[in-house]
Parts: sequence; structure tokens; C-alpha cells
Amino acid sequence: MIFSAGFAEAGTEGELLQQQIVDSAGSMRILGPNSLGVFNAKSNFWGTFTATLETGWPLPGRIGIASQSGAYGAHMLCAAREQRVGISVFVATGNEADITVAEAIGWMAKNDEIDIIISYMEGVRDGPKLISALRLARAARKPVIMLKAGRSALGSQAAKSHTAALAGDDAVIDAILREFGVIRVSGAQEALDIAKAATRGIYPENNTMGVLTVSGGAGIIISDEAEQQGVLLPEVPADARARMHDMLAYASTRNPVDCTAQALNESSLTGNFGIEMVQSDRYSSMLIFFSHAGGVASIVPALRAQLRRIREARPEILYILSVLASDDFVGQYEEDGFLVYDDPGRAVRAIGALGRLGKAFAAGEPSLPPGLPAFALPQEIPNEAMSKLVLAKAGINVTQDYVCLSAEKAQEAAGQAGYPVVMKILSPDILHKTEIGGVLLNVGSAEAVARGYELLMSRAQKSAPDARIDGVLVSQQVKGGVECIMGIQHDPIFGPMALFGLGGIHVEVFKDVVLRRCPFNVSEALKVIKSIRGLALLEGVRGSSPVDLNALAEMLSRLSVFAANAGPRLNNPVIATPDGAWAVDAVLELDDVLEKEEADTNTPMVEPF
Amino acid sequence: MIFSAGFAEAGTEGELLQQQIVDSAGSMRILGPNSLGVFNAKSNFWGTFTATLETGWPLPGRIGIASQSGAYGAHMLCAAREQRVGISVFVATGNEADITVAEAIGWMAKNDEIDIIISYMEGVRDGPKLISALRLARAARKPVIMLKAGRSALGSQAAKSHTAALAGDDAVIDAILREFGVIRVSGAQEALDIAKAATRGIYPENNTMGVLTVSGGAGIIISDEAEQQGVLLPEVPADARARMHDMLAYASTRNPVDCTAQALNESSLTGNFGIEMVQSDRYSSMLIFFSHAGGVASIVPALRAQLRRIREARPEILYILSVLASDDFVGQYEEDGFLVYDDPGRAVRAIGALGRLGKAFAAGEPSLPPGLPAFALPQEIPNEAMSKLVLAKAGINVTQDYVCLSAEKAQEAAGQAGYPVVMKILSPDILHKTEIGGVLLNVGSAEAVARGYELLMSRAQKSAPDARIDGVLVSQQVKGGVECIMGIQHDPIFGPMALFGLGGIHVEVFKDVVLRRCPFNVSEALKVIKSIRGLALLEGVRGSSPVDLNALAEMLSRLSVFAANAGPRLNNPVIATPDGAWAVDAVLELDDVLEKEEADTNTPMVEPF
Repeated sequence: MIFSAGFAEAGTEGELLQQQIVDSAGSMRILGPNSLGVFNAKSNFWGTFTATLETGWPLPGRIGIASQSGAYGAHMLCAAREQRVGISVFVATGNEADITVAEAIGWMAKNDEIDIIISYMEGVRDGPKLISALRLARAARKPVIMLKAGRSALGSQAAKSHTAALAGDDAVIDAILREFGVIRVSGAQEALDIAKAATRGIYPENNTMGVLTVSGGAGIIISDEAEQQGVLLPEVPADARARMHDMLAYASTRNPVDCTAQALNESSLTGNFGIEMVQSDRYSSMLIFFSHAGGVASIVPALRAQLRRIREARPEILYILSVLASDDFVGQYEEDGFLVYDDPGRAVRAIGALGRLGKAFAAGEPSLPPGLPAFALPQEIPNEAMSKLVLAKAGINVTQDYVCLSAEKAQEAAGQAGYPVVMKILSPDILHKTEIGGVLLNVGSAEAVARGYELLMSRAQKSAPDARIDGVLVSQQVKGGVECIMGIQHDPIFGPMALFGLGGIHVEVFKDVVLRRCPFNVSEALKVIKSIRGLALLEGVRGSSPVDLNALAEMLSRLSVFAANAGPRLNNPVIATPDGAWAVDAVLELDDVLEKEEADTNTPMVEPF
Repeated sequence: MIFSAGFAEAGTEGELLQQQIVDSAGSMRILGPNSLGVFNAKSNFWGTFTATLETGWPLPGRIGIASQSGAYGAHMLCAAREQRVGISVFVATGNEADITVAEAIGWMAKNDEIDIIISYMEGVRDGPKLISALRLARAARKPVIMLKAGRSALGSQAAKSHTAALAGDDAVIDAILREFGVIRVSGAQEALDIAKAATRGIYPENNTMGVLTVSGGAGIIISDEAEQQGVLLPEVPADARARMHDMLAYASTRNPVDCTAQALNESSLTGNFGIEMVQSDRYSSMLIFFSHAGGVASIVPALRAQLRRIREARPEILYILSVLASDDFVGQYEEDGFLVYDDPGRAVRAIGALGRLGKAFAAGEPSLPPGLPAFALPQEIPNEAMSKLVLAKAGINVTQDYVCLSAEKAQEAAGQAGYPVVMKILSPDILHKTEIGGVLLNVGSAEAVARGYELLMSRAQKSAPDARIDGVLVSQQVKGGVECIMGIQHDPIFGPMALFGLGGIHVEVFKDVVLRRCPFNVSEALKVIKSIRGLALLEGVRGSSPVDLNALAEMLSRLSVFAANAGPRLNNPVIATPDGAWAVDAVLELDDVLEKEEADTNTPMVEPF
């Protein structure tokens, strides 16, 4: 364990020193340098110099903190004590010359003393290690609560000057975290709020909350927050509502249930109302709001007795109490099995996270899609026709295209494809065909095809005199439908990432795209497609029929398999898919041949029509 | 002051009782019934039965709370003490038989003992009163921090069962709050965080923050949050950076400035670094993060001395300290002029709100646009041509249209307008023309116009045999540009609200629309237009030229004047405007004639061409 700073974070000389340490260590593992160290409360090992211990020990608990930053890790540790959250293990990885946060998360996922993992991370050094750690944690039903800093331009600039680690593409990291059901937070308080709620180990797939308050106003605020968090508030059953009405005519009995300030005069109302609610078995959690009344000495004993009655009626669900009370009283409520939050909004946000965890844990590891037979990518930048052939071999539905080397051949092809047709200049050197007028849509007659052929050739000649021209592509014109984009983006840390979005302005202006690590199966692809904001456009608006989402998902999954197999030489095939789902265009970029200015040959790569 | 419940909130009988009270009161003002009362700490008047006072008095301060809900108001009051925020006046309006929250806000805006207003509101009973209260508060540079509950479907349902007040259209209320620079929050904690930051009375128009930390990690998290909140982090000037570098070579000096844990060993670093930062005069606020170190007894005295040095160098800016410390230590920092927050993210969100307030206070009351001469709306539902005439009289730029009663007249009109033209069936009874095929675009020849005329007539005959047909409208075809929507929505509480958005899916699928109370001037209209998410489409994407935003703003402002003058009889004129900004369609709905199934006359309302 190396606490000292002045290594990789301090420039070239420090980097060399750090490398010397790594080399000298051989098979010995290293934590640090520039690390705040580690502690394990259970084994009573305190290998850290954090000043937080000067103000007190961590509370007992089953939560681990794995932090790249020592100071912010220590801040979370200290904030945990203030929020009454117990921490058992703390690891600060610092410069990560050897041990990384990813490895620490994986270790905590396997450790029986830890149920919940909080992590602070600036950069990811080893993608596969992070993925296997997150996979382990999900399989063990252990929440990972992640503070991935540097999500903004400002923040990632600050991160760059803080550690050597590259912040990485935040959208990619976000996709990875989402894939494994990691709860991403923006600060220590939020992380600890969620960790506290998770200490009961209740992760509902169907996240339903019963709300019992003494304030109608709080009930509304809680409802607002619940809707935003996707937490459901099912109504209390009619018979139970009737019985509550008999107990207190002016109570609100739907859910949120408001037993009004009358519950302070007649304490059994709280218990009786609560029992009616939990016995309905409609709620995976109960949020009970008593505000300052829960901190008034003359009220607390009777309130505790009533709360215990409720909990005894259904001990297996999650109970959260929102009160403003002294630490002493809070401790008493905790003893009774209630988690306590000052602010009801924070409690609802924590309950919302439990539901997202419940869904991720229940879904588990999706099966992998079937692989592809081995295949070779072309040796040179392929033209559109060739790119489509490659994709077609990977099982992707492409439009029927004809490569034509003369106007007559183009007319023949159009006759086969059926009018109207699309005509495009075919060249591996012209990536942005529309910009030079290299695409003609709705070409409706043989005469127009002939004119179109000459037009495209002369435009290509004029705009790109040095480009290799492989002829003109004549294609069936796909009618109607919605234009989509599917692509592959190669991430240096996590490998090929599939991208899906609606075409045109949706991608460019509204950034309505979703990323997913490759490969993935059809039902995962469907989840990806369904998570775009503009989904309604695919499901049909203004009386248009819904597109074939399954065909789209099938294609996206196959593209992900192709990308995963093709490895780093594949970059950015862009595909637009109308409602039957066809690739109407395709660009295959081959990283290592991209620099090559001239092609070696002028012969077209596929048999011309 | 009536504390008792059982009035309007308890059903019809209660409503009658409440009305009797109002009637008996005559000119005497009433607070309540169903109110928790009022207190004024300065005059030592405690007319409330809140149990919060059992656990202690409010801290001294210059903040007023005006709450419709008694229990939630009391919750805020109690939370204020826990967050060390002082409250001077508290009003709970309950059923609002007479005094409303709006009136209480207006009173606080005028009261010299109150600088900051926190309000909880479920429904707005009196729109104009709320508006004049918010106007007063803005003119007095007093922040209004509003918890408007019921923003979700769930929440507004809960609100309905809580008080008699209708929640109202949340989008409308949101627009009103935005108009007056009200800070809308979702819970007590957020409200109090912002109120605390506001106690220094510093509302920067140009919201710039200097960040000094002992944790690079915290610096990144603060940067992430700052970017989201629109808080700027200008760099420290080069000469000051050089001097800081000389003091500590491995410090980060850009901003966030990280003086590292070395500042704990060498306390003068904190002061020297901080002084360099504030003397640059680049920051309206300083956020200093010391986490748990700021709570360590052996560190606090030296740290305080250094913090005081920084503040003395520039006492006029806002100082916020983020530390985890005991109440005693926090009190000492407060005495030194530092506001203290546990969580740096919460501090940044509060600083962000100060900047939004600064902009609103500086902008002040926008001038009113010039009015319109008195005009009468048509007596019956007007057809499109008539609607456009009405709008044209209000100064709104409409397309040149020709009402044609025969195919020959249509051909003549098309010749005048210039080919291609648009042809539409003209009927006040057919609101959705496209759905019955009643619109023909790009009609390119005299022959096509004649065929078009017959086609439109036969379609109208077939789809709407009972509709009054006023002929066919021939219009110039506006080319290119971007389709927009301008409309007027009549709100029962706030009157006519103008709506602006991009046409088609942007409104229907993405709800990308903005509302603004009518009337408003051109520069306000421009702000409205610039606040849509899809603004980039108007500014030009993919090489298309930007549209004429000023013409659009001019039109929107004129529409708002028209709507304000036309009063409640105007409803929902929908206008699409391409890049020169023309109304290409118009629907004027007249509420009180909408029910009328048949028109009295079959003669067209404007002179046919």
C-alpha cells in the first residue's frame, strides 16, 4: 500500500517512478500510489491515514466503498456517519498502478461481509474487468451505486487535470452502467440515501408504495416525486377504505392515505390505518410521514408503539419513516425496524432506485445471441454495394441493389427492381453522396434512369475527379416507413458499441440515440429501441401504422453480433430502416485502410449487373 | 383566524358553513378556516397551534413562509431550524375563504422585515392576484421560492382529494412562475437550501463561481453540477496561477483550484490561494470544500483564520463552505460570514438559483407591446379566409389567399398567386381538412387547378355532406422554411396563454412547446421562441439557412396582443410559419358558438375573388 503522492499524477518523471515500482513488485499486488489506503472494520485493519477517523469510527454496517479519489471517498465515509449509514470496508485506489476500482468492486461482489457497493470513479482503465465486476455484483444481487464523475464538459476537463485517467465517453459509460443495473448518482448524499434504503435487501420488481401521512400536502409532494421515479401508488382496496372511513370520516383513504393531525390526538388511528394498508398486500414499501411530530417527546412513545403494530402485521416489506427528530429518537425508530429520512422526497428517490435494482436483478444476465461463422472483412474500403453484401452475409436485410456500368444496364436494373427507383453514385471514396448531388430519389421512367445515369457520372466527375467510380447503384425504392439509424461506434475501453436512433434531426439536433455494448440478443435490442424518446414515431402517430419493431430488433441484434465479431476493424456502418426494416445505405469504415488515399484497382468489387 | 377544520374541504355542508362565515364577516378579513394560523417572530405574535414550537423556537431571520398546507408549512418551518435557516413570519392559509397564499406573498413583498419568500401552493384561486404579488416581489428583488405541488398526474389527483382547489394546468402555472423569475422547487430541503444562499442578498446576473478544494474529486463533481446549473467557472488569471504554482507545484490552479491535503499541513496555503482567486474579481461566489477536515477540532481554528483572510480581501461576494462539522463549528463559520452546506452539490444548486434570480431581477418588468384598436370578433365560427382576415387586421402576416366559387375563378386566382399553388376546401365546419383529403399541395398547372377544384368539392360532399362549403381557397405556396405552431390556449385562471412550438411531431410526440401569458412584446416573444428544445432547427441545420426569428417573434407578440384584446371568445388559432413567417392556416374558435351545429347562412363571409 503506497500512500505517497508524486507519481503518475505528477508528470513524466513520476510516471517513470511508478513504472519502476510496478516492475519491482513482480507478482506482489500494489494499492496506490497516491492512495488513502484501505480499512476493514470487521478484521479491525485500519491501513489508512484519513482524518475522518479523528472525529469517530464508522458505524457498523455491510456497505463497502471503493473510491478512486481518496479525499472524496473519505468525504463519503464521513457523510455516511452523519446520515447514519454503516460502512464495513473502504478502499481508495488512487493512481491505480495495479489494483483498480473495477477490481475492488469485483472483490466486494464476492465478499460475504458486503451487501452494497458504493463507488466513486473518474476514469475506467480496464473495461472488461469493470464489466465482469458489475456482472458478479448483479448475480449476487448486490447494488452498485456509482458516482461516475466527469459527466459534463467542465467536469471532464477537471478530471483530466486531476488524474492521468481519461474520463472516457460519458454516454458509453452510462450505457454500460445501465446495462448492468448500476444506480448512477451525482453526489455522496444521494449515494448514501440509496445505500441506506438498500440495507434491508428488498428489491421489488413491481415497485409499489403505500403512503401514510398526517399532511395532505406532503402526500401530494410524495406523489409528484413517485411519478417521476416510476414508483407506483396502488389504491387501498375498497373494503379497507370503507373501514378507514368508519374510523375517521374526514380522512383521505385512497393512497396517499392522510389520517390527518387527528392521529396525534388518537394514536391508534396510525396503527389501524397502517395495518389496513399493509394487510392489503399491495405495497412493497410503506412511507410514513410524521414530520416534526415524530420528534416531539410527548408523541414519540405512542407513535413507536403504533408503528411497531404495523410492522408486525407485515414484517417482510420495507418501512421508511420521514420525521424531523433528534438522533436519539431516530435511533429508537431504527431499532423498531424503520429507516428514517428527514426529507420525504429523498426517501422516494431512494425507493425508486430499489425498484430499478429489482428489475435488473430479476432480469439477470441476458442470453448471448448465436454467433456468426468466421468471415473476413474486405481488404480495402468497400463501396456501398460491397458493404451491403458484407452486411447481408451477417444476416442483415438489405435492399435489392444493382451495380450498373452503363445507362442501358441501369434501365435494365430499374425494370427488374420496379419503378420508381433510387439511383446513387457508387464509389468508396465518396462518403457523403447527397452533398455532391450523388443520390436521385423517385426516378420514375426508363428515360429518367438514362438521364439520371449521365447526371450522376458528370456530378461525380465534377465534384470528385480523383474518386474511384465503381458505377451507379440502382435500388428498389422503399416506400413509407420511418427512417432510423443503426451504427457501430468503437470505444477504446469497451469495444464496439451499437447505436440506435431515429434518422435525420432526431440524431443531429435532439441527440435521441441509445448505445448498447455488443453483442446482444433480440429482446435486448428491443429494449434498446424502446428506450428512445421518439418511440411514438415507430409505434405510429397521426394514424400511421406501427413499424415492425421485431424486424428492427432482429437487425440491430445481428449488427451487434457482426460488430462484435468483426472487431476493431469495423467502424460506423450507418443503416436507415423503414418499416419492413431494410438497410437502404451502408458505410463500412476500415480503420487501418482509411488513411490510404488511392485505391489500388479501378475494377468494381462485385459483379456488375 | 379560524383553526377549525370541517368546512369547504369536508363536502357540501361544510362549504355552506364556510360561505356563512364569509357572509357574516362583512369587511373583516378571514384567515382560514382549516388554517394552522400565523406567527410574526419580530412582533412576538404566535397565533398558531403548530407542534413544531414544542421542540424549539424558529431561528431569527428575514424569511417568510406562506403555505396553503398547514402541516407541510410546519414541516418546512421545522426543517428550517434543522438546516439553520431563520424564519420571521409564517402564514398558513388553509381553505382560503378570504386570504390566499397569493395575497400573503404580496404582503411579504411589501414588508420590510422580509427579504425572501418561501411558498407552498396546491391550487391558484386568483390568477391576477398571484401575478401582482409576484410582480411586487420581483420589483423589490425578493426571491419567491415556490413549492407548487401537484405537478404530476398522481400528485394532482392527490391534490384534488386534499383541498377543494383545482390544481390547474401545471404547464400554465410553470409558465407564469418562469415569467416572474420564481424559483420552483420540489421539496422543503431544496427550498431552504436556496433561501439560505439568498440570505446574503447577492443575485449575480453573470453567475461565476470560484471553487477551492482539498479534493480533486470534489472539484469534478462540483464542475459537473455547475455545468448542469448554468453556473460558470472562469479560469483563474495566468499570473495568479503562476503564483499559486510557486506556492505548491502539484496544486491544480485552473478552477476548480485544488490545494490538496497539503493545505491541512500548511494552513496559510488556503488563505493565499483563496486571496489570489477572489482578487481576480472573476467570481460572484466562492465555494470552498473542506469536507470532514472542516470538522476536525485540531484543524478548525487555523482554517477559520485563513477563511477570514480570504473574505476580508473581497467581502462583497458570496462565500459558501462545504464541510461536515458539528453545529458548534458550523456556528463559528457562520459568524465569520460563511454559509455552510454538508453536500457540495446542494450548494451548487443553490448558487445556480441565485443566478437565475439575478437575471430575472435585472430584466425587471418588460414593457407592454402597443395595443390594438378596438375590434369585434365575427359573430359566427369563421372559415379559414375570414379567420386570416381577422388576424391580418391584428397585424399578423398571412399568406395571400383567394376565395373561389368556381374552377374558372380558381384558375384565375392561381395565375395571380403564381404556380405552384395550394388549394383547400373552405368551410367553417371542417376543422381537420387534411383528414378528408381537403388540402392539395403543389398544384402546378391551370388544368390541375380545375381538376383540383372538382376533386375538393366532391370529397367535401362525400365526407361532410352537411357542412357549409364556402368555396375553395387558393393560396400562394410558401416554399422551404420550417413549420411552426402558434396558438392561444385560454386558461380559466390566467386568461389567454400563447403557445409556440415547431409543427408536427415536435408538438405531438415531443411536447416541445412553450407557453407565455398574453400580451408580451417582441423581445419577450424572442425569448419564448428561443426556449424550445428544437431551436437548432430554426437556426439552421445541415446547411439550411436560419429562419427569420425576428419576423416570427413579431408575429407571436402580435398574436399575444390580439389574444389579450379578444378576450375569452378567442380560442386556439393555430398558425404555421415558414421562414418569412406567414400564417399559412388559421382556425379561430369562438367558445360560445362552438355548440351551434348549423350555420345560419350559406353565403361566404368575404368577397369571393
